[in-house]
Amino acid sequence: MEQRLTLVTLGVKDIARSAGFYERLGWVRSVRQAEGVAFFQAGGIVLSLYPRAELAKDAGLAPEGSGFPGIALAYNTRTREEVDAVLTEAVAAGGTLVRPGYEIFWGGYVGFFADPDGFLWEVAWNPMFPLTEDGAIVLPA
Amino acid sequence: MEQRLTLVTLGVKDIARSAGFYERLGWVRSVRQAEGVAFFQAGGIVLSLYPRAELAKDAGLAPEGSGFPGIALAYNTRTREEVDAVLTEAVAAGGTLVRPGYEIFWGGYVGFFADPDGFLWEVAWNPMFPLTEDGAIVLPA
Repeated sequence: MEQRLTLVTLGVKDIARSAGFYERLGWVRSVRQAEGVAFFQAGGIVLSLYPRAELAKDAGLAPEGSGFPGIALAYNTRTREEVDAVLTEAVAAGGTLVRPGYEIFWGGYVGFFADPDGFLWEVAWNPMFPLTEDGAIVLPA
Repeated sequence: MEQRLTLVTLGVKDIARSAGFYERLGWVRSVRQAEGVAFFQAGGIVLSLYPRAELAKDAGLAPEGSGFPGIALAYNTRTREEVDAVLTEAVAAGGTLVRPGYEIFWGGYVGFFADPDGFLWEVAWNPMFPLTEDGAIVLPA
């Protein structure tokens, strides 16, 4: 197994509603002819929106689940100021502000929003993790 | 907001246990001096292991949650044969086989495993989504 992650699938209630949210953030769908799924190129990986019940079925699992999903997607910003701007943008696009920007113990500035299905996004300025021009993080050893 | 995702945080019960699982898959940690968190470079993004209760606290949310988390990470393979090999490797490393490889309706071959906290990984051979040499997916328009 190579050390990588290639795609993240969010199991959503309504693909059109969820895709609309990401499109209002300025994201553009790829592979638009694909039915019953929405794909967004997200840097070198793919964010996929797929019906929650179908995702559970594909895995052979029961779809029931509630509460904190225990996972967060992160959008790292290039500047500290950008954190508040992205949170505002997310709320304007129909997301929910979960926690406004604050100074976190490790020296960064972060805030959280949720997408229409409650998936948690951390918007983070981390001065220790600079981004490449194309938005990738390359960690120090 | 740029169209990208930079980091995925898994809220785990025991970082050493979870990090050990990914290390047994051959993954190598970065930023090893960071305490209370484990970082793995995963292609152009980062997979981070962080205590579940701390993740909920950072977001200002209650940590309770159960059942299907509604999200799946995917590892796309370069060949169909690789799917079974990766599932076997994951089980040998201490993961749980959730669903053995099978031919899925969209023309691929997929299987699922869960990591020690139950986070779902889909191992997928998708002939429509070829990988670049460095393991990125670049979607067709």
